[in-house]
Amino acid sequence: MRAARVLPWFLCLCVVSRYPIHCGAQTCPADLQTECGDPSSMSENFNGPKSKNPMSYRWYNAEEEILGKKMKDWMRFSVAFWHTFRGTGADPFGAPTKLWPWEDGTNSLAMAKRRMRANFEFINKLGVDRWCFHDRDIAPDAKTLAETNANLDELAALAKELQGSKIRPLWGTAQLFMHPRYMHGAATSPEVGVYAYAAAQVKKAMEVTHFLGGENFVFWGGREGYQTLLNTDMKRELDHMAAFLRGAADWKKKIGFNGTLLIEPKPQEPTKHQYDWDAATTMSFLQKYGLIDEFKLNIECNHATLSGHSCHHELETARINGLLGNIDANTGDPQIGWDTDQFLTDIGEATLVMLSVVRNGGLAPGGFNFDAKLRRESTDVEDLFLAHISGMDTLARGLRNVAKLIEDGSLGELVKRRYHSFDTEFGAQIEGGKVDFETLEKKAMEWGEPVVPSGKQELAEIIFQSAL
Amino acid sequence: MRAARVLPWFLCLCVVSRYPIHCGAQTCPADLQTECGDPSSMSENFNGPKSKNPMSYRWYNAEEEILGKKMKDWMRFSVAFWHTFRGTGADPFGAPTKLWPWEDGTNSLAMAKRRMRANFEFINKLGVDRWCFHDRDIAPDAKTLAETNANLDELAALAKELQGSKIRPLWGTAQLFMHPRYMHGAATSPEVGVYAYAAAQVKKAMEVTHFLGGENFVFWGGREGYQTLLNTDMKRELDHMAAFLRGAADWKKKIGFNGTLLIEPKPQEPTKHQYDWDAATTMSFLQKYGLIDEFKLNIECNHATLSGHSCHHELETARINGLLGNIDANTGDPQIGWDTDQFLTDIGEATLVMLSVVRNGGLAPGGFNFDAKLRRESTDVEDLFLAHISGMDTLARGLRNVAKLIEDGSLGELVKRRYHSFDTEFGAQIEGGKVDFETLEKKAMEWGEPVVPSGKQELAEIIFQSAL
Amino acid sequence: MRAARVLPWFLCLCVVSRYPIHCGAQTCPADLQTECGDPSSMSENFNGPKSKNPMSYRWYNAEEEILGKKMKDWMRFSVAFWHTFRGTGADPFGAPTKLWPWEDGTNSLAMAKRRMRANFEFINKLGVDRWCFHDRDIAPDAKTLAETNANLDELAALAKELQGSKIRPLWGTAQLFMHPRYMHGAATSPEVGVYAYAAAQVKKAMEVTHFLGGENFVFWGGREGYQTLLNTDMKRELDHMAAFLRGAADWKKKIGFNGTLLIEPKPQEPTKHQYDWDAATTMSFLQKYGLIDEFKLNIECNHATLSGHSCHHELETARINGLLGNIDANTGDPQIGWDTDQFLTDIGEATLVMLSVVRNGGLAPGGFNFDAKLRRESTDVEDLFLAHISGMDTLARGLRNVAKLIEDGSLGELVKRRYHSFDTEFGAQIEGGKVDFETLEKKAMEWGEPVVPSGKQELAEIIFQSAL
Amino acid sequence: MRAARVLPWFLCLCVVSRYPIHCGAQTCPADLQTECGDPSSMSENFNGPKSKNPMSYRWYNAEEEILGKKMKDWMRFSVAFWHTFRGTGADPFGAPTKLWPWEDGTNSLAMAKRRMRANFEFINKLGVDRWCFHDRDIAPDAKTLAETNANLDELAALAKELQGSKIRPLWGTAQLFMHPRYMHGAATSPEVGVYAYAAAQVKKAMEVTHFLGGENFVFWGGREGYQTLLNTDMKRELDHMAAFLRGAADWKKKIGFNGTLLIEPKPQEPTKHQYDWDAATTMSFLQKYGLIDEFKLNIECNHATLSGHSCHHELETARINGLLGNIDANTGDPQIGWDTDQFLTDIGEATLVMLSVVRNGGLAPGGFNFDAKLRRESTDVEDLFLAHISGMDTLARGLRNVAKLIEDGSLGELVKRRYHSFDTEFGAQIEGGKVDFETLEKKAMEWGEPVVPSGKQELAEIIFQSAL
Repeated sequence: MRAARVLPWFLCLCVVSRYPIHCGAQTCPADLQTECGDPSSMSENFNGPKSKNPMSYRWYNAEEEILGKKMKDWMRFSVAFWHTFRGTGADPFGAPTKLWPWEDGTNSLAMAKRRMRANFEFINKLGVDRWCFHDRDIAPDAKTLAETNANLDELAALAKELQGSKIRPLWGTAQLFMHPRYMHGAATSPEVGVYAYAAAQVKKAMEVTHFLGGENFVFWGGREGYQTLLNTDMKRELDHMAAFLRGAADWKKKIGFNGTLLIEPKPQEPTKHQYDWDAATTMSFLQKYGLIDEFKLNIECNHATLSGHSCHHELETARINGLLGNIDANTGDPQIGWDTDQFLTDIGEATLVMLSVVRNGGLAPGGFNFDAKLRRESTDVEDLFLAHISGMDTLARGLRNVAKLIEDGSLGELVKRRYHSFDTEFGAQIEGGKVDFETLEKKAMEWGEPVVPSGKQELAEIIFQSAL
Repeated sequence: MRAARVLPWFLCLCVVSRYPIHCGAQTCPADLQTECGDPSSMSENFNGPKSKNPMSYRWYNAEEEILGKKMKDWMRFSVAFWHTFRGTGADPFGAPTKLWPWEDGTNSLAMAKRRMRANFEFINKLGVDRWCFHDRDIAPDAKTLAETNANLDELAALAKELQGSKIRPLWGTAQLFMHPRYMHGAATSPEVGVYAYAAAQVKKAMEVTHFLGGENFVFWGGREGYQTLLNTDMKRELDHMAAFLRGAADWKKKIGFNGTLLIEPKPQEPTKHQYDWDAATTMSFLQKYGLIDEFKLNIECNHATLSGHSCHHELETARINGLLGNIDANTGDPQIGWDTDQFLTDIGEATLVMLSVVRNGGLAPGGFNFDAKLRRESTDVEDLFLAHISGMDTLARGLRNVAKLIEDGSLGELVKRRYHSFDTEFGAQIEGGKVDFETLEKKAMEWGEPVVPSGKQELAEIIFQSAL
Repeated sequence: MRAARVLPWFLCLCVVSRYPIHCGAQTCPADLQTECGDPSSMSENFNGPKSKNPMSYRWYNAEEEILGKKMKDWMRFSVAFWHTFRGTGADPFGAPTKLWPWEDGTNSLAMAKRRMRANFEFINKLGVDRWCFHDRDIAPDAKTLAETNANLDELAALAKELQGSKIRPLWGTAQLFMHPRYMHGAATSPEVGVYAYAAAQVKKAMEVTHFLGGENFVFWGGREGYQTLLNTDMKRELDHMAAFLRGAADWKKKIGFNGTLLIEPKPQEPTKHQYDWDAATTMSFLQKYGLIDEFKLNIECNHATLSGHSCHHELETARINGLLGNIDANTGDPQIGWDTDQFLTDIGEATLVMLSVVRNGGLAPGGFNFDAKLRRESTDVEDLFLAHISGMDTLARGLRNVAKLIEDGSLGELVKRRYHSFDTEFGAQIEGGKVDFETLEKKAMEWGEPVVPSGKQELAEIIFQSAL
Repeated sequence: MRAARVLPWFLCLCVVSRYPIHCGAQTCPADLQTECGDPSSMSENFNGPKSKNPMSYRWYNAEEEILGKKMKDWMRFSVAFWHTFRGTGADPFGAPTKLWPWEDGTNSLAMAKRRMRANFEFINKLGVDRWCFHDRDIAPDAKTLAETNANLDELAALAKELQGSKIRPLWGTAQLFMHPRYMHGAATSPEVGVYAYAAAQVKKAMEVTHFLGGENFVFWGGREGYQTLLNTDMKRELDHMAAFLRGAADWKKKIGFNGTLLIEPKPQEPTKHQYDWDAATTMSFLQKYGLIDEFKLNIECNHATLSGHSCHHELETARINGLLGNIDANTGDPQIGWDTDQFLTDIGEATLVMLSVVRNGGLAPGGFNFDAKLRRESTDVEDLFLAHISGMDTLARGLRNVAKLIEDGSLGELVKRRYHSFDTEFGAQIEGGKVDFETLEKKAMEWGEPVVPSGKQELAEIIFQSAL
């Protein structure tokens, strides 16, 4: 096994899957095929940062306690059914590239069931406890809504069985963007028939989520927006969206579903402009229409950066307004203007994400959903494992870094000190809204030119980087 | 005058100013110097679209009635004191380029007065009735706040005299971003002394605006934001900003100022991230802190595009929420990531801007403030005229186009028709919030697959373009 | 027909097609169905700018002479087979929306032939003389390359027949990005088998283009780039690309094809980074590998803006380097970070585009290919007509504006004057490379501080806008 | 000293400077003022990654050998005089914030000398051996060019003395963008007098650089570009730029200066569009005008990202074309559209930068110039130290990571294997340009559908991240 010692990462990969695979276009030599771990043992497979077994966790140790909680309770990882089991590798300029061994090329009910079994095999091997789904991912469309609902029920029953006692949906959602009927929007379609159809679909998807023990229900308004304002009555569409969401919140109560309702902001794509542009815009909408107590936000990092914010900004905006409910754990490419939905691999970014999560006291009943996909060119089954391991380890490393930052305490203290001039009686009066402009003018005259110290950004950056 | 006939635009320019100027680096030949109009006659100088006199209006005809109002009442144009009289042409990589003949190189009180006279000469020649100013633009800083206020009073008295009976400030504002004391923010500075100083400055600037008969007062929070979240307590800063704006609104009432308070959103620059990112973000803040009835928005087109929206989107967002108070009439360059503050010259954009204004029933007591500057390389006095003429004519042309669109009626009808399925009893019930998800599901089952017609974007574009 | 008079654009549309259509979800009333022109008469249908018949040209008058050439000879418009006949409306989040009446849902040879007939019916009705195609658009893939080539031959024979004496391909091209085999690139794939396959495909596509009388052959390297530099040997890939293009140029000569070979730059999408990023990058590559005399550029406006340049910049960069061969006439949305391939509707942009074309003395043997597509939500057959009419009229209007600019002469003179200090003997010596730094230093000392006049940007903008 | 133990980073800072400083607006308590190191000992101050002394290096150990070279020989760090000693904290919306204790508020010759001494004190304390300067940074402008040159000579003499035997300029350059005379460009100004003046300035700056033992000379064409194409003759301007650079290369030889001439690409700012947009554009220009053998590139990371590329892309583009001469070591903010010139603190980015440097066999005679500035709000003298320490440590950490990657070998092997199908006789023939399209078509027919393996991006990312 000399080769394996020389190039431990690479050759090791030859044996991680039951499926025939390639090592750089060559079938893996037989004598290397027993080198490494089996994905079936992933869940116990924390080998530490020095491990060169790509099928092990280097940073994520589910049962280890960090900052007073088990890692798995901080993270609450979830596999996204659509990217992992319905992603084909197609893009606007290319045909599908992924032909998983369990797929037969059809969209039949039988295929849906085999796919559901693959999903749970994957989740179990990965060692996570949660999954997320769209209604239309897991069960095929039929000719009528009633038949489509029946298909969904059949798959839900299978999923419930496969979930066992441990696995639950982090959330479910209704796919209101793929079908041509939704081309002008679902809740914001100009066609009343589409509005009704969308309501029926959400109603059913929420029931299924409830049936499966889901903890949240998500609304991503992919088509709720416009392609051009020239043909759009924006006010009327927003009124419709509010009525729709009010109806969804009412339905939730009626069926006794206690999960959180989450809205997922995104600025654009597929529309030119989506109504739930970012956290602040969505909050603005919820406040205007009296819905602010019924919904929280599902923040996606790639959506954050597309809207011109850092992911950390969006998380903090949600958090300080009491709206941080869930995170779609992915990342984009800062030079690319569309949603690349990549697994997060940046340590600094992961640390900032986890900083918000820790400040929020965790995300439960939300969690981290891997709304991320393999690159189109990654076509081996083990790539599915590698991608998730990479995403989980990166966030776990972020959590460990946050623990270091908090234990050190310097960064928190630096921030606290910057505001200490408000930690006075007069400061408290200002913060309590009790100081008028006349009084402030008197103080300004009395105090003279204020002394303004350095912001210490470079020091803050050094302290932060040292925890990575 | 053969040359003038051959190249009417260009040579004509040689004579538009009293100051020595260059025609492509050559002094203008004497025999051409009586060719064209004198800026003093600009106000009556509507020559129509075929005119080649660059010192005339081709589209703006102040007293002409369009869609039931005089053009001047739709537009309510305002000259921005800072860009036009304090802009030096300096940029981050370059020293000042503009040495106007009335400047003596000092920032003295005497110079401030001479500059104020130049301002009103310019406004009168241009033929507009409004101007906008920052406190610190018009009067120099002194050693103490009391002395600075005295300077401001002296200039305000002069301005009042020069305003005469016709000219008034569209709005005044306090400059809370230039002085180093504001480097961490004004209302959101971590230093309580800065907060107090800023309050004193706003108090005084509002008094001066009131004294001059100003119709609005603007808050642009250029430094209210952060450079890095690592050293920032965003929640506490936003709380401070809300307390500050509440204090300003209270002071307005106390002094009997009836003008509108306006917040001007901008996403970033000079900060990495400004709190008033865009219209929706600002609205979200105003709602959260119970300030929504006290403030409207001043939308700037270049700020809109920097935040990833079209200007039309921001205007419509403000309008449909009852927040459209004023427009900072400028434009950016879609390939450039900073605020270029150019005079708007795009006819299509101007038509969309005026569409929002007409739908809003005009902007009064707000108007169009030219928050736009000459290019750094434009160093002739007549360039100041050309820039404003260009900006005014472009918007006036936009208004004429809107009139054509409205008279034709096809675009409005196209939009109305798209939503006609909601113009039914059932649609009205939905819009009234009276239809629950069970009823909608029943309807969806009953109706079957909805018919979804074409969005007719290309037709809408043809109709729109045909009005240009 | 009162309604038609009130809303001429809109209602008129109900009758422009033989296919059943909707007016805002309603079948067009029978009494309106004889109102307007039939698409079959489009080619003679120049009605002038005041026409409200959406099925007529308002600005494009094929036989009219402008600046010494017929409009049709300046424009050389071409219909793109792929967008117009293979575009389905699918996007990364949505299924196909377009179900043209001539499609049967298959990708059979018979269907390919019916589609080809529809293509020529459309081209004839529109009244243009050129079309563009990818090999794989017009004929289906088969099991082997030989069989695929046979399919292509069959369709080429049909196309040749349908072309008649008047219609010819502006260009052909090989589709080297859709099939999964090209996921890592075609000429730059790490797999030698893919390189060979791509060569075989280009060889055949060039032969077919030649057979059909095509005037150019285009290379768009959609997958020639990388997704991550971590797994890429960029130098080796570029070497391969150069060898490939050399092979293509050799083959062209061997078969006696006299068309121009064109490379179409694009910065990214579908790859993270495409090798032919923009005009300058492509020129750099061509120079390095000794290919600069064999290729010209096909500039696409939307690709230009994605790479951070204005379309006019890319056109001028190509033009002044003798590389402007063809234009893919479309536009993007300045707020959107992916290729939207919209029909150009902006008058100012169209005028700048035509300015480059006129300066280039036209584009022949290149032309304007409408690499633009209907919006996903535009699902009526007449939308195909409207979109092309809109794009053609916009460019035609641009040409008319350029004629006005040139006749006026002021803008050209303004530019010429700016450089007149080089129109001297000393200037000519500098431009001839005959003045060394010592001489220049002596002159600088002698001349003292240079006088630098205004750049007159605002004046230039006024002159430009006045021509629109 | 209990507090210091609890918060080691923060309190320690109170004492790192001789100047009175603030700990969050309070003067540092006397009893803490002996806690930490003195900047004078920085050069020996490698304390390792666990150190919490902010005035020590945690990763940079000058004399330590890594991958066969001392760290200082890989890095060749340089302090940029302009940012560090002429940066004032001014921005387009704000006045200067930095009032260093050695400044007296003038731009006198005496002040220039005191500032030069501060520069060398700083360089010595930091423990680096190189600096970079613009002519106009180090010596004040005078009334005539001759007097200005005399000032420059006086400062150069002082600098030479202060350099001693160890310190040398990494490079010098001429500031051709700040003075209003350059507002339309220097080499590309339409005024011949400006062209001559710029040549005289470059001539002198090159002489001074040579006199000081500089190793390179840089051209950053900040104003060589356009604000609008409407008033620009781009071809003529580029011709002038080529003549100018030819003159500079000739002058270099004439004076026996053996340093490398470097062009620094930047896409825009201050101009709308700079001619040296990016590495490929600059290479294109150099090839066209026969200058490719006379110049290399100075790649700046922030400029790279502004042009839409990753920094790693620009470095690799320069490297594989033999043009990588120097690096301006800074970073931007991916959400910001202007040059923020921040010190690089991102570990992943630093690792990619160092990967290019190691592949290039180092940068000598180039190096890393810190073209980076303190944030405007960082106003303590020690912030100057912290910023440089942070930048140096980040790159040093990157180098250590590269060593780990290379020692592991897996990433290199992964790349090599991807291309192994070309490591064959047939592959070599293709790469040698010996295989024509007919042969390739035969092979493609013979081989059938190619097998295309996974690109293994996720695995590559895991391997990469594991080295961080």
